[in-house]
Amino acid sequence: MNTKMVLRLNAYILLFDAVAMLLPIFVALYYQETAGFAFLPAMLLSLVIAIPVLLFCKPKNKDLYAREGLVTVSVAWIVMSFIGALPFFFSREIPNLIDCFFEVVSGFTTTGATILTDVEALSSCLLFWRSFTHWIGGMGVLMFVLAIAPMAGGYNMQLIRAESPGPKVEKLLPKANMTAKALYGIYIGLTVLEIVFLLMGEMPFFDAVTTAFGTAGTGGFGIKNDSIGGYSTYIQAVVTVFMLLFSVNFNIYFLIIARKFSSAWRNEELRMFLYIVLGAIACITLSNFRVFDNVGSAIHHNTFTVASIISTSGFSTVDFNTWPEFSKAILVALMFIGACAGSTGGGIKVSRIMIMIKALKREFSVLIHPKSVKMISVNGKKIDDETVKKVSVYLICYLLIYAASFLIISLDNFSFETNVTAVAATLNNIGPGLAMVGPVGNYSEFSGLSKIVLSLDMICGRLELFPIMILLLPQTWKKY
Amino acid sequence: MNTKMVLRLNAYILLFDAVAMLLPIFVALYYQETAGFAFLPAMLLSLVIAIPVLLFCKPKNKDLYAREGLVTVSVAWIVMSFIGALPFFFSREIPNLIDCFFEVVSGFTTTGATILTDVEALSSCLLFWRSFTHWIGGMGVLMFVLAIAPMAGGYNMQLIRAESPGPKVEKLLPKANMTAKALYGIYIGLTVLEIVFLLMGEMPFFDAVTTAFGTAGTGGFGIKNDSIGGYSTYIQAVVTVFMLLFSVNFNIYFLIIARKFSSAWRNEELRMFLYIVLGAIACITLSNFRVFDNVGSAIHHNTFTVASIISTSGFSTVDFNTWPEFSKAILVALMFIGACAGSTGGGIKVSRIMIMIKALKREFSVLIHPKSVKMISVNGKKIDDETVKKVSVYLICYLLIYAASFLIISLDNFSFETNVTAVAATLNNIGPGLAMVGPVGNYSEFSGLSKIVLSLDMICGRLELFPIMILLLPQTWKKY
Repeated sequence: MNTKMVLRLNAYILLFDAVAMLLPIFVALYYQETAGFAFLPAMLLSLVIAIPVLLFCKPKNKDLYAREGLVTVSVAWIVMSFIGALPFFFSREIPNLIDCFFEVVSGFTTTGATILTDVEALSSCLLFWRSFTHWIGGMGVLMFVLAIAPMAGGYNMQLIRAESPGPKVEKLLPKANMTAKALYGIYIGLTVLEIVFLLMGEMPFFDAVTTAFGTAGTGGFGIKNDSIGGYSTYIQAVVTVFMLLFSVNFNIYFLIIARKFSSAWRNEELRMFLYIVLGAIACITLSNFRVFDNVGSAIHHNTFTVASIISTSGFSTVDFNTWPEFSKAILVALMFIGACAGSTGGGIKVSRIMIMIKALKREFSVLIHPKSVKMISVNGKKIDDETVKKVSVYLICYLLIYAASFLIISLDNFSFETNVTAVAATLNNIGPGLAMVGPVGNYSEFSGLSKIVLSLDMICGRLELFPIMILLLPQTWKKY
Repeated sequence: MNTKMVLRLNAYILLFDAVAMLLPIFVALYYQETAGFAFLPAMLLSLVIAIPVLLFCKPKNKDLYAREGLVTVSVAWIVMSFIGALPFFFSREIPNLIDCFFEVVSGFTTTGATILTDVEALSSCLLFWRSFTHWIGGMGVLMFVLAIAPMAGGYNMQLIRAESPGPKVEKLLPKANMTAKALYGIYIGLTVLEIVFLLMGEMPFFDAVTTAFGTAGTGGFGIKNDSIGGYSTYIQAVVTVFMLLFSVNFNIYFLIIARKFSSAWRNEELRMFLYIVLGAIACITLSNFRVFDNVGSAIHHNTFTVASIISTSGFSTVDFNTWPEFSKAILVALMFIGACAGSTGGGIKVSRIMIMIKALKREFSVLIHPKSVKMISVNGKKIDDETVKKVSVYLICYLLIYAASFLIISLDNFSFETNVTAVAATLNNIGPGLAMVGPVGNYSEFSGLSKIVLSLDMICGRLELFPIMILLLPQTWKKY
């Protein structure tokens, strides 16, 4: 284990955390809130740890293998969540440290699950920080560090791979830091575009920025108790469109910028994603249109909800907890499917599901015609056995984490529906589930143990399981 | 597709069905029940279809490939369920044909899910038939046909493989029909042993036989409305022990008969199974002991319930639906785990879960030490990549069937808990789930569509998914 490199990269993350906290401090200055002072000790602590490491810990060996990449990423996400939680604690606006940690993990992992019963009681600077963590977590912090800090060597792809969602991460550009820069460029561009569209709907500037942060990261923290429910239909429509835009593989935007429109449209995952979205809206509308005043309103709110769940954002305009069971069942299915690979969304990912279904079809073909040899391909690219194996291993790991978490949180004795969907909503980085954790509910009543388990689920989900598993395995820490 | 062989084998099954119905007719004669006449048209129909096929359809080509094996098995199970359902319908004791089909599928697949609200209202001969279907289905009908009908060629393993539970079926003896005979010998021996033990507890003969049938097949149809709850503690204990005995790989009894005790004990799956059973009893008792009068009673009923669920029998002595959520969560986990491979039990199977966990561990090792090469073995035997792949494909198929069934039955608008556990309880061949389908509930209120879907789930579960999937694929029916 190249511990020095892990330490050094983590010091960069702390530095990044400290710098990021300047923004909410500006917000506090603008609104003249004393809660802004709560950021200072957190910043100080980051700097006190980071600066000596950066000054004195200079690794001679800069090699970074998969193991180091995975450990770096998981340690980084835990460390930055601890530091990021401190302002909530010091401001006393969230008195319990575990609650603070849960809330910030939920932010960075772009989950949007909250322990707050009254979001509107929070100071503006903390509300801003809460939404800003979504934006930071959406694209990934290590990705950001790579984009701005020039580091030698090709090893950086290990970090991008460990932090990026999806079964297979492609280098878009020859160098890792160029890829990171390009992705951040698209990310910033789309975020600004959403802010502009929201402002055009006469949304207040503060609301527009925080909502755009929540959409961009597919996070879903609202700054109002009724999430997006109180805003105009236009604003809800803008958020719907951008939730979908941010749950598409960013490579598509690359292709669009390069004017390769037909290649963009030929992307199988994108088309499958759109079919699922349209199918879900149609099925849900057939099932629940009576709940609404008219079919138009039903389609509007159902489109918003489907976009919100499949993108794993978790914003809401209505309380879908009261919908018929079939509508809710479809939402639960969407929770597991999740967004496209290479987006900021969570869940199992459409491309993984496609690979699974194709692998299944191939096995059936072999059973029927034992001599047939068939290749699987997605987006015209051959999927080798190694990728299929990785997807299977991912699925097994996913189910084991799911089962273990479900068992532990059942100790709190809340309803079956609450427990099943609370794990689904955190492991898939959505936010709201059903029953007690539905869109108008929250996670405040869970025990400390459950909150820690659900926080780990959120990190597992965001980092696609393996980094945290590797971190927890004793084998990782043995010399070889 | 060798259609003639498929037809001929199915004719054997119909013949078998007709002969099997002689037993309930004897019961009807003994109890002088007119319901016994209901079996005659069903028998007649079987013979009218079977005899001409056996007389005139003589395939020249006796080759039976995997495809034919899978199709034969799935068609056979559907056909025999239709015929087996007719006596319930003709007797008018279950007026709805879909209900009759559901009940008999539940019998043959050893599920034990019922649509009856008052089991005790049924005639004795129908109660007997209901329990007897468990016994037939437990070991498999094609297995029985193989054991008694001498058929040339080594192709018969295809049928055993298609009908037997578990990721890898071993030939115990050089010939398929010898293996089938040996397995049936053990099965009959254990069933008789249980009847003897039950009679020693002064259980009425009829009750002892039907209860033993339900235990042997790990089915779980009771002949009383309170299942096994009304019997003595001794009888409940005997049933507990035999539920566990029937959920162990029958190869173990082979080894014991051959006096290879240490090899039997070295069976990894057996030990893992026992650890899970003991662990589950301990955890549940810690969680629910307050529900009972004393800890002794808690351990007694918890052991019964854990044995009943993990063996996928589904008998009950208490209403576990009222237990704390943690206890229920463990039961739900046990539903998915299921029994050992090569037993009469259902579920995903302990050995499959072991292979999954070992494959996961190996992948982590490779991530940590990319140069390491590690083999997976279970019971000292190397598990090759092909088996791991089959297990993964099984898991993917399982989840897709699970999700589709859950969505469809949600249309009935019963609770989330009901829907999730109804699919779990049928696909894993258990019987009772939670909420509406709990131990004191039943499946009567589901719509016809849901009952058909759940019936298919039961057959999918019993035949380990692939036969039914192959049957439904258009590809299977194409010439090549």
